[in-house]
Amino acid sequence: MDDPVLLTGAGGRVGTAILDGLADAYDWRLFDLEPPSPSSLPAGIDESDVYVGDVTDRGAIGEAVEEVSAVIHLAGDPRPKAPWDSVLTNNIDGTHAVFEAAATADVETVAFASSNHAVGAYETDARTPDMYRTDDDYRLDGSELPRPANDYGLSKAAGELIGRRFHDEYGISVACVRIGNLTQGHPPVEYERGQAMWLSYRDCAHLFDRCLQADYGFEVVYGISDNDRKYYSIERARDVLGYDPQDNSAEYTFAGEPRE
Amino acid sequence: MDDPVLLTGAGGRVGTAILDGLADAYDWRLFDLEPPSPSSLPAGIDESDVYVGDVTDRGAIGEAVEEVSAVIHLAGDPRPKAPWDSVLTNNIDGTHAVFEAAATADVETVAFASSNHAVGAYETDARTPDMYRTDDDYRLDGSELPRPANDYGLSKAAGELIGRRFHDEYGISVACVRIGNLTQGHPPVEYERGQAMWLSYRDCAHLFDRCLQADYGFEVVYGISDNDRKYYSIERARDVLGYDPQDNSAEYTFAGEPRE
Repeated sequence: MDDPVLLTGAGGRVGTAILDGLADAYDWRLFDLEPPSPSSLPAGIDESDVYVGDVTDRGAIGEAVEEVSAVIHLAGDPRPKAPWDSVLTNNIDGTHAVFEAAATADVETVAFASSNHAVGAYETDARTPDMYRTDDDYRLDGSELPRPANDYGLSKAAGELIGRRFHDEYGISVACVRIGNLTQGHPPVEYERGQAMWLSYRDCAHLFDRCLQADYGFEVVYGISDNDRKYYSIERARDVLGYDPQDNSAEYTFAGEPRE
Repeated sequence: MDDPVLLTGAGGRVGTAILDGLADAYDWRLFDLEPPSPSSLPAGIDESDVYVGDVTDRGAIGEAVEEVSAVIHLAGDPRPKAPWDSVLTNNIDGTHAVFEAAATADVETVAFASSNHAVGAYETDARTPDMYRTDDDYRLDGSELPRPANDYGLSKAAGELIGRRFHDEYGISVACVRIGNLTQGHPPVEYERGQAMWLSYRDCAHLFDRCLQADYGFEVVYGISDNDRKYYSIERARDVLGYDPQDNSAEYTFAGEPRE
């Protein structure tokens, strides 16, 4: 991929994981609300690759998307308890603005950071905590209808709909990644749900790399490591994207230490 | 149902069909952007039952929903080609406001006017026009993921997500009715797609009556008459809601005349 790849929300946690693993792999263009400090920029990315703006600003996102081959769209309000007003604007309208700009600029591929919260209401009282445990074989696989348990999750499910629409109308390859619990170093401690849906930084970077490299139409996949505790299937990501995760929360103790 | 039923968007086409058939059946409370002329009000509904406001106005919708037992939510921009800004505000934010008000007021049931446009992109070049014809057995049944072909359809699919969320969190019974082509008197003329998804006025009123009377949790159903040409299944509406349509576009000629 010779043309630049635009990374919106570049300064957030997912953006950090992606750049940690893939700074050298692409010609990055970073977009975020605030400029990063020059010293925090990965080697090979300089200030001219940085665009500062709000994704809901059509002029700003339109400029940033010019002549890019792909977009990884992460920008939005990341708080699971974010109020409706914020996710309506930042996540729903912002995602529509990004896809519209991508369509206008003939971008080939958009990978969209959806969330486990898009399906949070499958975690009913009757299913939990069993579904978070290794011996339970309940699985969501991405073909199910969303069931958001909060407005943030609703906004992410709406973002998937936006992706579907722009794929169908413009032929953009769209991967919606329902990201689990992304933490650096080790899985969340004493939090079974987080261990079930852990995504390591290196698996995160690898998965988005696959979203940029693989050949597909419209996909909804789960973004988690290969955790023994998982209740999200990663088969679709393996089959279609070639995702090959290296990590598994079972390799760590509940205290976050690597097992012997 | 002794308490009032709130009908938002009461002055539109769907509201007119519902009131045509059910004016006497419920204690109606009408909500719309503009007041109806007093002479246009159905018998039994007087000016004190009329609330004028915008569904995105939380104060106005909160007042209208007080002490109602059920809501039929039709309000929104009904234009399939409506611009994104309008459907973002009127349809997505407006629907969220209505469900939030309904949850706050402990409303038991909300029937939401979704649309065939929520799944319009299933009508691919490869499937059409065959799918509109009697001898084709392609069927959508409401369990499929939405595939909107325009921003209006996207907003309706987002409204279904909102309904799902408020059902899961508050236990509201929510029926999302993907309304087909609602026309008075006879099916659309020389328009195969419209004949396939025709909904007569009396079947429309009957279907929303069933949404108010039946016992269910969260449902997505198709709102069409029992057309020979249909590509939307009405089995779920029959089974869960007790929908028993009386009309069929095949009983009319292509010119809109009843067949002998």
